[in-house]
Amino acid sequence: MEAYTPGEQPTERKYIKLNTNESPYPPSDGVIKAVNSTEVSLLNLYPDPVCKKLKNKLAKLYGVNEENVFVSNGSDDILNFSFMAFCNADTHPVKFPEISYGFYKVYAELYGVKAMIMPLNKDFTVNVEDYLGNNANVVIANPNAPTGIALTVEEIEKIVKANPDYVVLIDEAYVDFGAESCLPLIKKYDNLLVVRTFSKSRSMAGARLGFAFGSEELIRDLEKIKFSTNPYNINRLTLVAGEAAIDEDGYYTENCKAVANTREYTQNELKKLGFECTESKANFIFAKSDKIGGEELYLALKENGILVRHFSAPSICEYNRITVGTKEEMDALITAISSIIKEKNNENI
Amino acid sequence: MEAYTPGEQPTERKYIKLNTNESPYPPSDGVIKAVNSTEVSLLNLYPDPVCKKLKNKLAKLYGVNEENVFVSNGSDDILNFSFMAFCNADTHPVKFPEISYGFYKVYAELYGVKAMIMPLNKDFTVNVEDYLGNNANVVIANPNAPTGIALTVEEIEKIVKANPDYVVLIDEAYVDFGAESCLPLIKKYDNLLVVRTFSKSRSMAGARLGFAFGSEELIRDLEKIKFSTNPYNINRLTLVAGEAAIDEDGYYTENCKAVANTREYTQNELKKLGFECTESKANFIFAKSDKIGGEELYLALKENGILVRHFSAPSICEYNRITVGTKEEMDALITAISSIIKEKNNENI
Repeated sequence: MEAYTPGEQPTERKYIKLNTNESPYPPSDGVIKAVNSTEVSLLNLYPDPVCKKLKNKLAKLYGVNEENVFVSNGSDDILNFSFMAFCNADTHPVKFPEISYGFYKVYAELYGVKAMIMPLNKDFTVNVEDYLGNNANVVIANPNAPTGIALTVEEIEKIVKANPDYVVLIDEAYVDFGAESCLPLIKKYDNLLVVRTFSKSRSMAGARLGFAFGSEELIRDLEKIKFSTNPYNINRLTLVAGEAAIDEDGYYTENCKAVANTREYTQNELKKLGFECTESKANFIFAKSDKIGGEELYLALKENGILVRHFSAPSICEYNRITVGTKEEMDALITAISSIIKEKNNENI
Repeated sequence: MEAYTPGEQPTERKYIKLNTNESPYPPSDGVIKAVNSTEVSLLNLYPDPVCKKLKNKLAKLYGVNEENVFVSNGSDDILNFSFMAFCNADTHPVKFPEISYGFYKVYAELYGVKAMIMPLNKDFTVNVEDYLGNNANVVIANPNAPTGIALTVEEIEKIVKANPDYVVLIDEAYVDFGAESCLPLIKKYDNLLVVRTFSKSRSMAGARLGFAFGSEELIRDLEKIKFSTNPYNINRLTLVAGEAAIDEDGYYTENCKAVANTREYTQNELKKLGFECTESKANFIFAKSDKIGGEELYLALKENGILVRHFSAPSICEYNRITVGTKEEMDALITAISSIIKEKNNENI
């Protein structure tokens, strides 16, 4: 069994970290105020396992009922529970794109569930036709990772509609940076689960907080798995932080706009250097150079104190996934790439 | 499938909470200082998934190697992973006492693993003979819950030795309040997993931090499950809190002594009121009255603003499990019980 390999977290030197899609911005002031010494001194008490207050705030913000909201220890936790709850070795295999979040494959293997892995189109888009009614659950990251390319809500709806007896899980970890959420569809389809996270757009990768929206039936099933494995899996301080973050949603919306702007700026600069970039709607860029190989660039950047993420799958090995950091970090990236390419050209002369 | 039912957490009024075995003492000053606004402002970054620093501190404190230490999101998380990793529907059933932590049954059912459930002796002790080589993994809480009664290390060793091809998991959630840990046995037996938690003796039920000791092989298996489900399951602030707590171990040792003293004091007072108590080595008392039924007392205490835990299993339904709080809380308990019994006597006259 192959476990998931998270992005590297080296400690031997200080890097500009553009490899794990974290937000370059800290949590909002309200979060920092809310997680105070009074709250820390209450750590001897268990957290609320039903997370009533947080669910209530999420339901209000997103215009759904509390019964349609699930919260857990990061969106990975929710993906894991979903494979446990909705997949089945005999009756419910799972279908997902070949190039996508690496964990889907891991869960399928862990639970002995048949994975029907569909290639992407040549241009890295998801081929919607592949997911129309094949007697399997469907898992799609939208925007997809590491490409950043998004399906439209109409395309998602086609998939959801075509699989009424199976669960369609749309992993919207990166949706806040420019794609359109398919959340409104949960009112029409009881087989759609929309998975979200505080890790990216809400600057809380370190707090571990994921949430999901779906029909009461789907949410009830996830709650059952949570209460059958680890009911208290969200700690007190994360609950407090999450509640405070919802109260300051405007701060995070502005951050998402800034990230989208920096993404467009960086992509333009990369294109000037001869890079090809996918049309990313996420907080990362997926880019390949016509002058330097993917792995070579990854290693040269690491040498220069900048971490990006390189994947070795043949169809994407000439690319790197570059998290969108601050403008300053991206300028440092551009400068480093320019001089790496220049040096390489000099060597070749 | 039946999920676990955690102790009730009512919010409609303020209770003296003696029902979920939390510590009555806050985390140490160092923990409160360590979880500060600087740390909170770093929540945009992922936590260290291998928890290097915390593991290192635990290894030093307990005199083992880092490779013998596993940490995860509470001890429930570790129990869950252990059932996933070590039990198997066909080859590795699991054996545990009928009266014990309610979650063992839940995990067995969740993973479709045969549970060989052994009754306790009449005096609520675990019958060691039942666990000597039966082609099954063994899970024993020591001290046991909700009885608080502990096996000796010699008895545990007998069980571990008799099951060389199966995992023996000793759940030491409550060991710090007066029982003897079987931790030293991991150097001799590679099939022993000792599971611990920061929730009780280290005043951190709200932080979600469990740890375990075992052979490198067992720990590696648990790591594999963690990295195949939710690698970042311990958040940044809990890591910081846990590390700080280890640095102030003396504070927690003193708290455990205070809890043990309060337990003995309370048991004596209860005996004066006609109660029978098990010989608890944990941070709770397990007691039945000769004057009032278990459920009746539970309900009357709740009416009086004091929550204790009542279980409906026939063999223990005349008992209540009462968490040891502060001396003041226990005096309030004794006063309440006295007047409940008095009132009942008056009614009967």
